[in-house]
Amino acid sequence: MKIRKALVTAANPRQRTLPLQTLVDPHGETKAALQIILEEAAGAGVDEFCVIVCPGDESAYAEACGTLRERVRFIPQSTPRGYGHAVLCGREFIGDEPFLHLVGDHLHVSHNDKSCARQLIDIAVAENASVSAVQPTRESQLTSYGAVGGRLVGGEQPLYQIESVLEKPTPSVAEQQLIVPGLRAGFYLCFFGLHVLGAEIFSLLEQQQAAAPDTPLSLSPALHALASRQRYLAFSVAGRRYDIGASYGLLFAQLALSLSGRDRDHVLTQLVELLAARPKE
Amino acid sequence: MKIRKALVTAANPRQRTLPLQTLVDPHGETKAALQIILEEAAGAGVDEFCVIVCPGDESAYAEACGTLRERVRFIPQSTPRGYGHAVLCGREFIGDEPFLHLVGDHLHVSHNDKSCARQLIDIAVAENASVSAVQPTRESQLTSYGAVGGRLVGGEQPLYQIESVLEKPTPSVAEQQLIVPGLRAGFYLCFFGLHVLGAEIFSLLEQQQAAAPDTPLSLSPALHALASRQRYLAFSVAGRRYDIGASYGLLFAQLALSLSGRDRDHVLTQLVELLAARPKE
Repeated sequence: MKIRKALVTAANPRQRTLPLQTLVDPHGETKAALQIILEEAAGAGVDEFCVIVCPGDESAYAEACGTLRERVRFIPQSTPRGYGHAVLCGREFIGDEPFLHLVGDHLHVSHNDKSCARQLIDIAVAENASVSAVQPTRESQLTSYGAVGGRLVGGEQPLYQIESVLEKPTPSVAEQQLIVPGLRAGFYLCFFGLHVLGAEIFSLLEQQQAAAPDTPLSLSPALHALASRQRYLAFSVAGRRYDIGASYGLLFAQLALSLSGRDRDHVLTQLVELLAARPKE
Repeated sequence: MKIRKALVTAANPRQRTLPLQTLVDPHGETKAALQIILEEAAGAGVDEFCVIVCPGDESAYAEACGTLRERVRFIPQSTPRGYGHAVLCGREFIGDEPFLHLVGDHLHVSHNDKSCARQLIDIAVAENASVSAVQPTRESQLTSYGAVGGRLVGGEQPLYQIESVLEKPTPSVAEQQLIVPGLRAGFYLCFFGLHVLGAEIFSLLEQQQAAAPDTPLSLSPALHALASRQRYLAFSVAGRRYDIGASYGLLFAQLALSLSGRDRDHVLTQLVELLAARPKE
């Protein structure tokens, strides 16, 4: 298994400016969030990218790709029919290969030398299976994420076989269906915005769409169906996701990026100066 | 004197995405930097705005104005002929009135109950004169700003009569020409990106342009000429400017905005959690 292609979804009409936000990456280079996302995938071996966008956003997004621009194809999602439908828009581009899927509003900061995307691809190749990155997440944040239930299969590694996937479950539903042995109490395995998926996800999405053509198409039900058909894994990567669409999401994404990189001391110094410089109240 | 109009320059081709960056304002509302800038002016009594933009940026900028959109006129700067030329593009819109001038890449955080723009307009009205906001700035940052020399005329207030204006002076030139009695050693009065100017600035800019039609037109020489013709003041406002075009400028602007507002405790708590949550190295 080789992962050559990445599919990035960035077509949510309420979030269309997020991938265009400017950040400083861990090397101290200023670039758009989209370029940081694409570079993580490129660094993990991906050659070709498609980005699903709102119609009309192509040129602004193309500028935001930086040096990777030539390797990116933009596919407009003509009507806002949900996240799952956005993924389905990439079907022709992906073809029959397994692919990396990233979301345009999440940045990742690895806690070791391998990027989060690289960690995930390495596991997917080693296990020859679809794998979603997950992060143990407080119950109070379940309203923002898809969550999985399953059992530990990785021995020393935080690798789980997924048994069910639920989109934004309530705490009581999560407690009944998504308890994962070994996690801290009150924590669940929630998606990281990073997946390695086989092309069969497109057929599953199409089936869901055909069954309910008038409702927005979500990704989680198709992933739930995937888990019932084949060995589908979750891997708790060594790192953190930062949802830049959340309140103060950009602020904390930028802080995490800079504290993990070259300018750590400089940023910490300025941070202390800022905190100290506030006038007496 | 009444200040009804504001002129915002945002046409620097290298900075055109800055006013579109998303931030959380001190009230906890997520909006574009441009809207935060316009709202500061609106809160200080300004009714009508013009924003000088790169040709083609009008529609993205219009979306970034939020609720003030109807009160904003966009004027494209057809060729990038300098900051002074961008100001001159607003001449017809401003007419004969004194006006507030802001730059599209600076945000201001006041240290008291009055916004920085309001502090400046109040001084301009009380003194019936053109006034530029300034901030005592370390010598090492002179390379980023226009700087003024002059003498204290405000009694208890940090108000100065300007005698000279220099754009990005070297430290040795600043030491010879811009020493201001009463400032800490190694500090100079640098522009804040906020001015109340009379319409005569346009004639001065036009004269400078006629004298050197082939060089980019800067604002500082015209302000220097203004100081030789009339009483032109500098006011050290109670607050700080944040240049969002600087490296980590957005990060520190966002931190300063949030620490001055409603979400101060929430942001400080998350900040401490982020610093504490980093893995052992």
